[in-house]
Amino acid sequence: MESVLIAIGGNALYDKKSGNNLCPQMVRSVCQKIVQVYQSGYLPVITFGNGPQVGNLLDMAETSARLFETPVTLDTCVSWTQGEIGYWLTRELTRQLLEAGIEKPVMAVNTLVEVNPDDAAFQKPSKPVGRFINADEAQRLYDERGWIVGPDANRGYRRMVPSPKPLRILEAAPIRHLIDHEFLVLCCGGGGIPVYKKDGVFQGIEAVIDKDFTSCLLAKTLKIENLIICTEVENVCLNFGQPNQKALLRLSLAEAEQYQAEGHFGAGSMGPKVAAMIDYVRHGGKRAFITSLEKTVEALAGQAGTEIHAGS
Amino acid sequence: MESVLIAIGGNALYDKKSGNNLCPQMVRSVCQKIVQVYQSGYLPVITFGNGPQVGNLLDMAETSARLFETPVTLDTCVSWTQGEIGYWLTRELTRQLLEAGIEKPVMAVNTLVEVNPDDAAFQKPSKPVGRFINADEAQRLYDERGWIVGPDANRGYRRMVPSPKPLRILEAAPIRHLIDHEFLVLCCGGGGIPVYKKDGVFQGIEAVIDKDFTSCLLAKTLKIENLIICTEVENVCLNFGQPNQKALLRLSLAEAEQYQAEGHFGAGSMGPKVAAMIDYVRHGGKRAFITSLEKTVEALAGQAGTEIHAGS
Repeated sequence: MESVLIAIGGNALYDKKSGNNLCPQMVRSVCQKIVQVYQSGYLPVITFGNGPQVGNLLDMAETSARLFETPVTLDTCVSWTQGEIGYWLTRELTRQLLEAGIEKPVMAVNTLVEVNPDDAAFQKPSKPVGRFINADEAQRLYDERGWIVGPDANRGYRRMVPSPKPLRILEAAPIRHLIDHEFLVLCCGGGGIPVYKKDGVFQGIEAVIDKDFTSCLLAKTLKIENLIICTEVENVCLNFGQPNQKALLRLSLAEAEQYQAEGHFGAGSMGPKVAAMIDYVRHGGKRAFITSLEKTVEALAGQAGTEIHAGS
Repeated sequence: MESVLIAIGGNALYDKKSGNNLCPQMVRSVCQKIVQVYQSGYLPVITFGNGPQVGNLLDMAETSARLFETPVTLDTCVSWTQGEIGYWLTRELTRQLLEAGIEKPVMAVNTLVEVNPDDAAFQKPSKPVGRFINADEAQRLYDERGWIVGPDANRGYRRMVPSPKPLRILEAAPIRHLIDHEFLVLCCGGGGIPVYKKDGVFQGIEAVIDKDFTSCLLAKTLKIENLIICTEVENVCLNFGQPNQKALLRLSLAEAEQYQAEGHFGAGSMGPKVAAMIDYVRHGGKRAFITSLEKTVEALAGQAGTEIHAGS
C-alpha cells in the first residue's frame, strides 16, 4: 500500500470564534477526509500545524506565570500541542474507523526536530501564532509583555515567533517502522518540538518550526511516496489575483523548476511550499500536491489540486 | 532481549520547591537509571505519572479561562502532560544514550485508555493532583473555584480528582510493535488519557487514571516479561511502621497471595499496587517488583526490592 503524508494546518482545526484550540466539527471533517483517503487505497501519515493553538497555550502559560518559578518556554508549549491535537485527532479517527468497519490502530507520537540555533530566523520572528489582535491590543501586549507582533495577511495582527528550518527528525526510524506495519501515525505536530545540540547536550529552543517544511523533510527522509500540503486554496496559481490568473494542475519536476526559476511563486506563502515540494520530488518523492483538504482524494486520483510529479 | 516496564511517579520528576513541572536534575537522574537498566541487559519500556503536573496545568487552564469559550477539560490537561513529560524524557534520554555510545531511538507516544463512565471512582474523587496547599487555601479554592480538596498523606491538602480503573489501552498494538523492534518507548503518560465510549463515540472524560494500574494492564496486555513499580521505599514491608516491621524480598505468587489474603497490605497505597502486581504475574507476567528508582538495576539482578515471581 502506498503512503501519503497529509500536512494539515492548525487553522483547519482551530475554532476562531470561540478561541477554543480545537473545534469538534472541524476535527470531524478533517478525520472524515483522512478515512476517505485510506478507503481510496492509500495509507495516510498525518502531520499537523499548531499556529493558533501554540500561541494560545503560550499566552496561557504567561498568564499563569505565578504558578511556576521558571517561565514555561515555547518548546514546551509545542509539546503540549502535540499532546492535545494528537489526542483529539486520535480519538475522532479511532471512532470513524470503527464506524467504517476498519480495524486500524491510530497512534500520535511526540516528535523532536533538530534546528540550527544560528538559523537567521531567530533574528527575525516571522511565524504568526495565537489569535488575531487589533493594533491597540498589539501595542499593549508589546508594552506589557514584550510580545513581538506583526500584521498577518491583512487580517489583523498576531504574535510572531522565530521559525527556523528543520534539519533532522529524531524519531524518523520508529515512525518508519510504524508506517511499514501500516499503522496510522500522527506525527511532527506543530512542525516538531525544536531542539538543538549544545556541547553534545540536547536543549529546547524557543521557536515554532513550519509544519510544511518538517512534513517535506519527513516525506523525504522516510521515502513516503506521496505528499499533500493542505492549503485554503485548491490550486497553486500563476499570476495569482491578476486577470490572467491560471491554476496549475499537473507539473513535471522540470516544469515546476522552470516556473520557480522564472520567479512565479514569489516569496509569499506559496513560494516556500512549492520549493519544499520540488526539493522532495528531486530527492525521490513520487508525487507532491498542494490542494484543499476537501480535494485530497480527488488530487490523489489526478482530478484536482496542483501536482508536481517525478515523471516526465 | 527481555523487556522491563518501569513505572515512574510524577513526583520523581516534579520540582516541589519551584513549582516547575519538571526539574532538570531529577529528569537527569531518572534517565541515568533507565540507561543503566538498558546496559544491564533489559529493554526498558517507560510509563510515567503526572499527579503534580496535571494539577498544575489544570490550575493554569482555569486561571486563563478567559482565553477559551469552553473550559479546558482534565482529559485534555492529561494530553498536555503526555506531550510535556514525554518531550523532556525523550530529550534527556537521547542525550544520555548518545553519550554512552548507544544507538537507540527513543519515542514518546500518546496513549488513550478506555474507562467505564459508571466506575464508582467518579463519585469519590481520590487521586491527589497539583501542589500541596494549606487548610485556608483549600477552603478558599473550594469556595471560589469548586475544587474538591482532601488531605494527602499528612503532608497537607491537595486537589482530588476521580481515578477510574483502566480497561483497555487503545495503542497497545503499535506499542507492542515498537518494543518488538527494540525501540525505547515512553507511553501511558499520566496513566493514559481517559476516554469512554458513548453510543459508539469516543469521548474524553474528566479523570486521571492511576499510572500503576495502567502500567500493570499494559504489561499484562503486551506480555512484557518484567514490571517495576517505582516507589519512595525500597521494599514492601509487613507491619510497616511497627517495631516488628519486616521487608519482603522474593515472593512466589502463592506467597504473595497468602499475605494478601491475610490482609497484610491494607487499603493504603501499597495494597492496590501489590494487588495489581499479583494480577500481572497471575496472567503470565514473569517478575514484578516494587522498589525505589535508585534500586531498579539491583532489583532486576535479584539483589534489592520486593519481587513477586511466577516461579515456585
